[in-house]
Amino acid sequence: MLNHSGIDGCLRALAEPTRRAIVERLSQGPASASALAAPFKITLAAVVQHLQVLEECGLVRSEKVGRVRTCRVEPAGFAPLANWIAVRRGLAERQLDRLAAVLDQENLVAASKRRSQRKRKQ
Amino acid sequence: MLNHSGIDGCLRALAEPTRRAIVERLSQGPASASALAAPFKITLAAVVQHLQVLEECGLVRSEKVGRVRTCRVEPAGFAPLANWIAVRRGLAERQLDRLAAVLDQENLVAASKRRSQRKRKQ
Repeated sequence: MLNHSGIDGCLRALAEPTRRAIVERLSQGPASASALAAPFKITLAAVVQHLQVLEECGLVRSEKVGRVRTCRVEPAGFAPLANWIAVRRGLAERQLDRLAAVLDQENLVAASKRRSQRKRKQ
Repeated sequence: MLNHSGIDGCLRALAEPTRRAIVERLSQGPASASALAAPFKITLAAVVQHLQVLEECGLVRSEKVGRVRTCRVEPAGFAPLANWIAVRRGLAERQLDRLAAVLDQENLVAASKRRSQRKRKQ
């Protein structure tokens, strides 16, 4: 089994619906933890915990300016997961293409055989 | 909060390392549940359970030919998750581009002011 610690962290983080909703909100624009807490109807402490998980896996970055910590989505953080998906999807598509080509070839051979048999009968 | 049941299922399925390894193995080519069980050193029953989860979220398809059930990765099953990531990544990238443009503009204005001040002093 290969080690994909980056992907592992991202998937675990995004599998939680509130954390995914926080990413959706932050992808629209930066926000402070307290601004995020209000629409989600969860405590500030819970939002801070979710943000920590998202920061640890590189999907969110935060910066303290004065007394306010502002968070934003880090687009580069999605790269390992997006690449992992693209590779598996691409490989599976090529498998299907090869299968379709084999079936096409078999159909052609079968059609050719049927034509030969018909000619012999005529 | 938006409902992303398709994405939710995919993320929960892929957050489990063995299921992710099964997807990696199947993206190389179709395999039966028993062929999958051997390298992962887990029971056939556990593999069957993992495959059920992957089938339910649309990432894997299985087909019974004779007595053997063969599984393969369904490339279309990745589409909702890949799209979700692409949208969030794209939005966050545009946020960063806009921020960079604002900072560039501020730098230009500041440089222009410094030039005017120098000219007045001369």
